[in-house]
Amino acid sequence: MIESRPAIRVTDPADPRIAPYRAIRERDLVRGGKRFIAEGTSVLRVLAGQRRFTIESALILESRLAGVAGILASLPADVPVHVAAPDVMDAIAGFPMHRGVLAVGHRRADADTPPEPETAGNWRTVVALCGLSNHDNMGAIFRNAAALGADAVLMDAQSCDPLYRKAIRVSVGGMLTVPWHRFETADAMVDWLAAAGFTLTGLSPAGASALEDWEPPARAALVLGTEGPGLPGPILDRTRTLRIAMANGFDSLNVATCAALVLHHVRVRRKGASGPRSA
Amino acid sequence: MIESRPAIRVTDPADPRIAPYRAIRERDLVRGGKRFIAEGTSVLRVLAGQRRFTIESALILESRLAGVAGILASLPADVPVHVAAPDVMDAIAGFPMHRGVLAVGHRRADADTPPEPETAGNWRTVVALCGLSNHDNMGAIFRNAAALGADAVLMDAQSCDPLYRKAIRVSVGGMLTVPWHRFETADAMVDWLAAAGFTLTGLSPAGASALEDWEPPARAALVLGTEGPGLPGPILDRTRTLRIAMANGFDSLNVATCAALVLHHVRVRRKGASGPRSA
Repeated sequence: MIESRPAIRVTDPADPRIAPYRAIRERDLVRGGKRFIAEGTSVLRVLAGQRRFTIESALILESRLAGVAGILASLPADVPVHVAAPDVMDAIAGFPMHRGVLAVGHRRADADTPPEPETAGNWRTVVALCGLSNHDNMGAIFRNAAALGADAVLMDAQSCDPLYRKAIRVSVGGMLTVPWHRFETADAMVDWLAAAGFTLTGLSPAGASALEDWEPPARAALVLGTEGPGLPGPILDRTRTLRIAMANGFDSLNVATCAALVLHHVRVRRKGASGPRSA
Repeated sequence: MIESRPAIRVTDPADPRIAPYRAIRERDLVRGGKRFIAEGTSVLRVLAGQRRFTIESALILESRLAGVAGILASLPADVPVHVAAPDVMDAIAGFPMHRGVLAVGHRRADADTPPEPETAGNWRTVVALCGLSNHDNMGAIFRNAAALGADAVLMDAQSCDPLYRKAIRVSVGGMLTVPWHRFETADAMVDWLAAAGFTLTGLSPAGASALEDWEPPARAALVLGTEGPGLPGPILDRTRTLRIAMANGFDSLNVATCAALVLHHVRVRRKGASGPRSA
């Protein structure tokens, strides 16, 4: 076993050093704390490789330590790594921790303020979420945003928490690398986008343009609503609408899948127009 | 309350008429039975509207009866509809049944035989799955196949069961409408596809063509592996590979999302070449 980093063995589930990991599932339900939980090897790798969020500590099942040794070695030297036996790990978390790889990160103070102009000035493609309530969809949208090169994700306060443990896992860490900001209301978000010069684009079965014919504007904001009801009428009215070519009788694509189709289209068209992006 | 169809009230969880609904979660783990469980209003609507699978019965929570009255009215007259109070429903299913809408369908005897030539002869686009092990991904692939007009989904016996309750739910009933067949091995499936004149297409970060430049062949089979490892080398070697334009450093899209991107591309190109499809 390669243990390239000293790990602190925890034997008491009540050890105050691992307090943030205690009863993880109950904590999932609490929004607005200063911490978030990252779970699984893929997410830990992303967390260790980014600089947007700071890492407080890690807690690793002893049998998983060797498998993540390389990632742990890349963490800043002052981040404590704890290791525990299976029974201790389960007692801490409050349920069987099959994955056995956990870390605590700190939320960003600027998540609930509008983007700074100097940051947002370079954004060309953003996704804007209105009342997106499903954590799987939130995670999948961030995964697609990261993979297909969206510059940021904006959302209203009615949308669910991107730093919910499962959302982070589904995103494969996407929301740790793609900048995001939460606005008080969808109207405030859309106002901000319009003032920043973004062309608002929505999706509708009766959309004005077919996706494949659509030439992305210089600054494109894809505005998405929750599954089922979609965008509220007043928001939809402010967008130019696209339609996706679906089969008769089954016009139902997942909201994150729709985002992927649009983001891929934008990426391909922009590449064609100006060569590969530098970002 | 509109109750346009007589419902049989069940008050005893041990009532033999609702035996197929008993202990649903345990049944989920058993593969190869003759029945499957459809759950939720959206899935019931698809089940009632299709003719590939026969429906044995329905079991509805009393408070949900009015909401699905229209769907129930469309069921064949000989399909019994049972209704139960919440405590009886939970006792039957073995866990709290929040959705309260269940139906039992019969599996098809031909699911484990290769497609008949007279059926498959008209297929132009199929998805072929090798060892796809995740039920969410299975469901999402069928949802995308249905929405974006794939003619069929083929899979090997190592892939998970499409008629697992949660997979059906995630598919929004897609696997009840899109024809599918399971082959004993991935090799047998790929042999069948090649003999039927399909051009085998795989996905790879080092793909020979960019998706957006790819002209779909007359008969296209998109061959997908499980997430992570992807396609086995010998299978990948038999495909022409496509690459999807992803952002640097995060080349990770969900397998069902990849399927959506390819199927949408095929749909758009085919429409452009020959007008809207009739199917």
